[in-house]
Parts: sequence; C-alpha cells; structure tokens
Amino acid sequence: MKKFAIGIDIGGTNTAIGVVDEDGNVLVKGGIDTPSHGDINQYVKDLAAAVREMIKSVTLLNPESEVLGIGIGAPNGNYYNGTIEYAPNLSFKGVIRLVDLLKAQFPEYKYLALTNDANAAAIGEMVYGGAKGMRNFVMYTLGTGVGSGVVVNGDLVYGHDGFAGECGHTTLIPNGRMCGCGARGHLEAYCSAPGMKRTAFELMAHYNATDSLLADKSFNELNSKMIYDAAVKGDKIALEVFELTGKYLGQGLADTVHHLSPEAIFLFGGPTAAGDFIFKPTIESMEAHLLPIFKNKIKVLPSKLSAGDAAIVGASALVWKELEK
Amino acid sequence: MKKFAIGIDIGGTNTAIGVVDEDGNVLVKGGIDTPSHGDINQYVKDLAAAVREMIKSVTLLNPESEVLGIGIGAPNGNYYNGTIEYAPNLSFKGVIRLVDLLKAQFPEYKYLALTNDANAAAIGEMVYGGAKGMRNFVMYTLGTGVGSGVVVNGDLVYGHDGFAGECGHTTLIPNGRMCGCGARGHLEAYCSAPGMKRTAFELMAHYNATDSLLADKSFNELNSKMIYDAAVKGDKIALEVFELTGKYLGQGLADTVHHLSPEAIFLFGGPTAAGDFIFKPTIESMEAHLLPIFKNKIKVLPSKLSAGDAAIVGASALVWKELEK
Repeated sequence: MKKFAIGIDIGGTNTAIGVVDEDGNVLVKGGIDTPSHGDINQYVKDLAAAVREMIKSVTLLNPESEVLGIGIGAPNGNYYNGTIEYAPNLSFKGVIRLVDLLKAQFPEYKYLALTNDANAAAIGEMVYGGAKGMRNFVMYTLGTGVGSGVVVNGDLVYGHDGFAGECGHTTLIPNGRMCGCGARGHLEAYCSAPGMKRTAFELMAHYNATDSLLADKSFNELNSKMIYDAAVKGDKIALEVFELTGKYLGQGLADTVHHLSPEAIFLFGGPTAAGDFIFKPTIESMEAHLLPIFKNKIKVLPSKLSAGDAAIVGASALVWKELEK
Repeated sequence: MKKFAIGIDIGGTNTAIGVVDEDGNVLVKGGIDTPSHGDINQYVKDLAAAVREMIKSVTLLNPESEVLGIGIGAPNGNYYNGTIEYAPNLSFKGVIRLVDLLKAQFPEYKYLALTNDANAAAIGEMVYGGAKGMRNFVMYTLGTGVGSGVVVNGDLVYGHDGFAGECGHTTLIPNGRMCGCGARGHLEAYCSAPGMKRTAFELMAHYNATDSLLADKSFNELNSKMIYDAAVKGDKIALEVFELTGKYLGQGLADTVHHLSPEAIFLFGGPTAAGDFIFKPTIESMEAHLLPIFKNKIKVLPSKLSAGDAAIVGASALVWKELEK
C-alpha cells in the first residue's frame, strides 16, 4: 500500500496543490486561482473539487494507494486553530477557519493541518530535505518577503499564539527602511528580493553609477535575477548589493543563533541561487556578530528542497509530521 | 517527609549555596569563595563540604526531610554535558566536568543538573515565580551583563550545543558600542547596568550637562542605582537614560517576539527596580517594532523571584524540573 499526502500552498493569486509520497516526490500537481471575490465557502468547494480530481488521477496510477491527509501552507496561517488570520494579501477577511471547512469536505482524513508557508518549508526540510535528523535548526525563506521556521528539539516552534518564526521582522537598522509591515529597519526590507533591489538603487544613487549594468532598469523593472546576472559579469554595484545583503542577513542570522543555538540555518528562495555571492558575505557577517562560544559552529546551508515544488512539498510534510505524534 | 533541593550559584568571586523547599523558600543559605587558584578538585571538595554542612543543619530542623538533588547555575554552563566551558570570569580553564565531579561526591543524589545562571533564573520563574503555568515565555536578566532563558512548550531551550538563550548578544546597532564579548552593538552594551552608565556619559557629553545630578560622578563611580535616584528627582539626563535604555531593550524584545511568539517576557535584575521608568519605554519601543499580529498581545512583566535569592532558587528549580521528566 503506497501512502500519499496532499500539499496545498495558498498564495495571493494562485493555490498550488500536489500529491506527494513519503520521499517528497510530487506525483501530480495542479492548482486553482486564489479568488479575489472573498467568498471562502465557494473557494473551499472549488479547492475540494480540485483535490478530489487529483486524488482520482493518482489512484488510477497507483490502485493500491492511500491518502493520509492534507497539509496547508498559507499566509498568516495559525497551526493551533487551523485558521488564516487577517492575511493582508488574501481576499478572505478576518479569521478563516480553513481546517474546519476542509474537514467538512474530507471527513475521511484524520490528518489536516495548516501553518504559514515558511513554517511548512521548514517542516519540508526536516522531513524530506537537508535537515533530516537535525533536531535544532532554522529556515529562512528569501523571496518577495522573508519568512522563517524555527525547529527546537525536533518540533516546529509555534509559540504562544501559533505565529512564532517571523525572523524576517527582526530589526537590523534602527529607524531604517520602511518595512511592508509598517515598522522600520526590519530584515525583510533589506534581504528579500525587493530589498536587494532597494539596495541596488541606493548604491546607484550614492555612487552616481551611470556605468552600472543596472543603470538602465526602472525601479519596477529591476529584479534580483538581473542583479545576479550583472554580478556574474563583474558589475561593481551588483557585487556590492550581494556584499551588503549578506552583511545584513548575517547580522540577522547571528540574532537567531543567540536566541536558539541551532545546528544549522537553511536559506531558501531566489536570492540563494546566487551561491557564494550571497553565502560568503552572510557567513562572514554572522561570524563577526557571534559570541565566541558560537563561532565556527553553526552551518549556513542552501535548502535541499527543489525551488518549484518546495511550497507543496513543505505543506504535505505537515501530514507526516502529524503522523509522528 | 519534606522534600528539598540544593541550589548552587557560581559567580566570579562568590559561590552561593542554599537549601530550598518545593515552594521556593530558602531554608538555609551560605556560600564559599569561588577561588582564584584554578584548582577545580580542591574547589569541588570545599563545595561538597559546605553543602554537607548545610544539609546537616536543615536535617536538624526537619528530621523528616529528604534532599532530592543539586541544581547549579554557572557562567557558560552547558546543560547537556554538565560542564562549565571556557568561562572568562572563572579561574578554572577550559572545559570543567562539574556535574561528574559532584556526582562522585554525592552518589546518593539522582538529580544533578547544571545550566547558566540566566537559564536557571528562567526555570526558577517557571517553577516558583510569575511564569507558573506558562508554556512559552522568555526571561531577560539585566545586571553586569544581560542574560536570558527561553522556554518553549514548557521546556527550557538549550539548542544544539547547550548554549541557547544568549539574547543579550543580539545586535541592536550595527557598528555600535563595543560589547564585552568582542563584537559591536550588542544589547548587553546598552541595557546592562554598565550599559546604562555608558548612556549617561554619552548624554552628558552630548548636552554638556554640567547641571546634571550625575555630573559629579566619575565613570567608575556611577551606577544604575544613582541614575534611578537622579531620575526620581527629575534629573533630565537620568530620565533620558531610562527612555533610551527602554528604547534599546524594546527593540531587542521585539526581535525575541518575532522569533518565539512568547506569552510573556520577564525582566529581572537591578535596573528593573526602576519600575515604570524602564518598563514604559521598553513596552512602547517593543510595540513599535512588532508585526501587527503581535501588537498588544505580549506581556512584559517584572520577575517575581526575590532579587537576593533568585540565583540560588533558580538553580534549585533545575532539580524539580528534572523530577518532572
């Protein structure tokens, strides 16, 4: 009997769905639009129909199969209550009891769990990825924002209210850049992909860098991939963007180490594809900020989750994690 | 049968010892010098003799009593190994296997455990103090340095190597003040008692504050109690020291909240005796740095451990915590 879990990743515009086996292989994947109409009941119906369709196709391929449950990654996802709470980028307002609503659609599944996308990625890393066998680690996801998931003694830390692991909102620079959350100087404002773009524009302004390969791009055009491509060609601005981003990120990672003393910190997301450009200054900066007892002890590693499927795979990992309990 | 635990707090110059009951009452206390000779075997012998003497006097008072074990708080204490590792302020060099050495002296006790002093204080708060019944909280101890203890799901977080909970070394100000650990801009350099003194001297220099009540004290004379006394009298420099210390501390507490989402953060130590002078700006600053989902949710509370006995009581609490396991 082959065992499967459903992974659902709810984003602002798209909801990705996948059927995942115990080794983290995605057998079928698909998705529906995350609606802008705000009607949660309609959305849950559409979501359930899409999930059933996908299970059907997996069952055709593997007649001896069993689906054990559904794991969901969602912005502002609260594990304790199975709710999405006041997510600014979704059309569903207030507190959405998504796990209860899905349980009504799938009473046959014992394991239904929800958390935010970065927590799901951390669980994915633990169940399928580079953190297998690690009991204390932290995962940072660098993308449009910066998320994180904290694992202590083999369990994800949800904290008192279910929202722990928002390391992207530690303060790096007092009275620094505006963060999307309304506060100032947060890590996310510097180390997300848009944060890197902001750094590039600051540097071009500072040096009056008319000869930079980035100097012909508008603020809305420039992205972190272009900065990487320019760095590969030796563009001074682009190289300094990576130096500075690493310096900022390393400061934040050191704060995390001082709180939690993890075995490793995993980095996931677009900017990490730049390899040494980002890892080298990050590790240097982290080490410079650490207490002597932590120096040269903490591994900073690229995530082993494949970029395309990580969100689905991470969400599905929630099911295997629930099974352990 | 009354049950007791021994609490030992090892400081740079003095080792405090107490016999503590299940409610956190200290029945007998005393101590020996922490030696400067660096001979750990002699120290363990002296310590064991002092502990035995104290147990004898408790047994005289309570013939029907049982001592269950020994808990130790020590700088750079490693819970996992029962060791003190490279403590800069002790004369014992390298890695000291203190728990093993004490077990040889007290084979009759099942529960012997060691951690650093701030972790011990956090366990004390959980077992005897204001954190009774809380499963997720953090304790900051403000003194000569700034220590901390992190509790997640009812257990102290030791991390991968036993040294978690060094929140005093999060970076508040990039390239800021020199910290005693060698790095720059750490919280401890701003929010410890000496940190407050440094702020007072910076402010006097900035304003050329010849009329401040603090202006007649030398750098080596001034302490946080004097700053408090001056603040009570309305001294502008002293009041601004508390404002700034709270601003710095609140930034650090927000970083802690974003990592761990605790129910409460407890503050312990000399500077917290200033009450609203320190708590008000700390809470205001923390709130200003928080993500909306955390705002107005996290309690910042004074420790309920009595200042004089907290170190002994915290260390003894390790024994009751081990008993739970």
